[in-house]
Amino acid sequence: MRRALELASRGLGHTSPNPVVGCVVLAPDGRTVGEGWHRRAGGPHAEVEALSLAGDRARGGTAVVTLEPCDHTGRTGPCSGALLAAGVARVVYAVPDPTARAAGGAATLRRAGIDVTGGLLGPEAENVNHAWLTAARRGRPAVTWKYGATLDGRVAAADGSSRWITSAESRAEVHRLRHEADAVLVGSGTLRADDPHLAVRGVADAVQPLRVAVDTEAAAVRPGARVLDDAARTLVAVAADLPAGRTAAIEGSADVVRLPRAADGRGLDPGAILAELHRRGVRSVLLEGGPTLAGALLAAGLVDRVVGYLAPALLGAGAPLLNDAGVATVSAAVRLEITDVARVGPDLRVTAVPRPAGTPTTEGP
Amino acid sequence: MRRALELASRGLGHTSPNPVVGCVVLAPDGRTVGEGWHRRAGGPHAEVEALSLAGDRARGGTAVVTLEPCDHTGRTGPCSGALLAAGVARVVYAVPDPTARAAGGAATLRRAGIDVTGGLLGPEAENVNHAWLTAARRGRPAVTWKYGATLDGRVAAADGSSRWITSAESRAEVHRLRHEADAVLVGSGTLRADDPHLAVRGVADAVQPLRVAVDTEAAAVRPGARVLDDAARTLVAVAADLPAGRTAAIEGSADVVRLPRAADGRGLDPGAILAELHRRGVRSVLLEGGPTLAGALLAAGLVDRVVGYLAPALLGAGAPLLNDAGVATVSAAVRLEITDVARVGPDLRVTAVPRPAGTPTTEGP
Ligand SMILES: NC(=O)c1ccc[n+]([C@@H]2O[C@H](COP(=O)([O-])OP(=O)(O)OC[C@H]3O[C@@H](n4cnc5c(N)ncnc54)[C@H](OP(=O)(O)O)[C@@H]3O)[C@@H](O)[C@H]2O)c1
Ligand SMILES: NC(=O)c1ccc[n+]([C@@H]2O[C@H](COP(=O)([O-])OP(=O)(O)OC[C@H]3O[C@@H](n4cnc5c(N)ncnc54)[C@H](OP(=O)(O)O)[C@@H]3O)[C@@H](O)[C@H]2O)c1
Repeated sequence: MRRALELASRGLGHTSPNPVVGCVVLAPDGRTVGEGWHRRAGGPHAEVEALSLAGDRARGGTAVVTLEPCDHTGRTGPCSGALLAAGVARVVYAVPDPTARAAGGAATLRRAGIDVTGGLLGPEAENVNHAWLTAARRGRPAVTWKYGATLDGRVAAADGSSRWITSAESRAEVHRLRHEADAVLVGSGTLRADDPHLAVRGVADAVQPLRVAVDTEAAAVRPGARVLDDAARTLVAVAADLPAGRTAAIEGSADVVRLPRAADGRGLDPGAILAELHRRGVRSVLLEGGPTLAGALLAAGLVDRVVGYLAPALLGAGAPLLNDAGVATVSAAVRLEITDVARVGPDLRVTAVPRPAGTPTTEGP
Repeated sequence: MRRALELASRGLGHTSPNPVVGCVVLAPDGRTVGEGWHRRAGGPHAEVEALSLAGDRARGGTAVVTLEPCDHTGRTGPCSGALLAAGVARVVYAVPDPTARAAGGAATLRRAGIDVTGGLLGPEAENVNHAWLTAARRGRPAVTWKYGATLDGRVAAADGSSRWITSAESRAEVHRLRHEADAVLVGSGTLRADDPHLAVRGVADAVQPLRVAVDTEAAAVRPGARVLDDAARTLVAVAADLPAGRTAAIEGSADVVRLPRAADGRGLDPGAILAELHRRGVRSVLLEGGPTLAGALLAAGLVDRVVGYLAPALLGAGAPLLNDAGVATVSAAVRLEITDVARVGPDLRVTAVPRPAGTPTTEGP
């Protein structure tokens, strides 16, 4: 299963709106006779790839898969059928398929007399498909909020300067996070302050995420903005009630979508932003700030994972990494659970997931 | 040497103004025949303790010591002499003694024909004596700034509430840090907001640090303040120019010292505070805030180590963990180097040391 997970992870960034899946086929004597992973949406599923490599040697053998084999015919046939046709005697999978459409593969295989076991290395497999599973379970894209800040929680100094707080190593990692996300999201404050580019650079074979600018009044993204170049597609979200024509200047270089305002009047409705992205096939969003938009999404319970890059530096003044998450007192703090800590060059990367009492979380260990 | 370091660390919190030292004596055949550590100032040195256990079996053997054996007669005789008298053939030590008074032990032993090697596990040995070595080299107490904050760098919520941001596990560790420090230092803002107690609780055989309150106008520490109880000694630092009698109400329950104001007029001169503590035998200070006093000490280059307890929580508002460290722009940030990261209960403990370009630092790995 570890090998299957390794294979699965090769698909990260390439398979959306599908999950990443890895499969290893063993002959009856335990030798590996086929390996495969899901390489891109529309391409063959991992099982089919591994079975075709294995050929006849799969007969009576075992298929090890990171996700419950699908049971429906989409752009490709059901994997449950392919496994039956190949004559495997045993199927071991890690995580059940949570989608109504594809689930049921395990049951189908069992009915056909195959020995089926689920749950092997489940947490690791949850982790590799974190975004896809979250999206499937919640019906909206999974949101990872990424920030880079000093140890004292500042994203800019007193004079507004913000380059470079984190290290080159951390910034390189962020390009990998972008590559693995279907969309990158920023607010109008960040667009104004930083004129960010938001495309992936320095990742071989990169898939460019959709760049999403939340610009309620169509006032921050102006012609010439770096986010409007042709390195990747761009979606600008503006208020539904803006006068027609307000976005004319940028419509040649970006998609524009009109969305309802937030109930509290501050910007656009966060749920509507995510629903629109989901409708467009986006399953994972990398929220790159700023502090105000992140606060709104956190307050709405729409952040599934936090990845903070902490630079070992102190500023003692300047913009804080998070603004107004709707918290007035310590007991109401947004509580998280740290799932991973790693050194990235001189910096520290802290990964955490929200821990709302009683709410099911989908995160790995 | 690892064993000797382990022995040395048993003395932490008990030996000030002396270093902690551990010693292992090996017979010529390599068997351990004596162990000792410096248990308290005025008590026998580690070498003497280990040699007296070893007795005649030390003759022709090796002494492994965490610090260069001292060469002077203080409250006890010189260790160089004791090693010679015991007839050891070889001495291995980790870190040279930086004090003018005690250094020279290695040279004395070499002149007497003993095989002397220094530098073994030096970084680990630097670490166990971090405070004492820093104090010896800089001529002022070593300062560790400890804070507890949320991941977004807040020490209080919007309504001012600040209990409990960090976990019980982290708070227990802070009591150990206090026990290992000679003094605990806080500013008047913290005294006003939190009425802190600052004594060690929950540590067996604890040594209480001197509680130091920086209260320029003698306005924050009032009779009845918890810091004035008899759990530990307390020193209140006030401005030298205050009218006589202003501190009369607390003089029964605390020492009061009058110190010059800072050159910029904000509170007391940080260098003068540390010099006064050094004069009183304090070699290590645990700075427990708040954000303003910590900013002043950082700006003055008087912080030698930062220990941050990061709670996996987000507030999005409230007091920042650090105020005004004299930094206006990113390139002038106080840059640190992370030396250790550990999980403490649900929290993260990050230890870092300043990295002033070109300045020698005394820290371990
Ligand atoms: N280090 C980092 O990780 C990082 C990342 C990003 C930004 N930054 C820094 O953050 C600063 C910008 O901060 P910011 O807080 O002004 O930027 P922001 O969060 O990117 O933008 C906030 C703006 O987004 C718009 N918005 C639309 N819908 C919203 C909603 N539902 N909730 C909240 N906002 C919504 C609002 O303006 P309208 O409604 O008027 O459009 C709002 O003022 C810059 O200094 C930048 O350098 C740092
Ligand atoms: N979570 C934590 O780790 C932690 C720790 C401590 C405090 N806190 C929080 O921090 C808040 C208090 O913050 P604060 O900044 O007001 O407190 P502070 O740093 O403890 O006190 C600042 C005050 O100390 C005095 N001071 C004397 N000499 C100074 C010097 N050289 N430089 C700077 N200040 C000097 C000044 O007042 P005068 O000159 O008038 O005396 C100054 O206003 C409270 O909310 C408390 O809960 C949190």
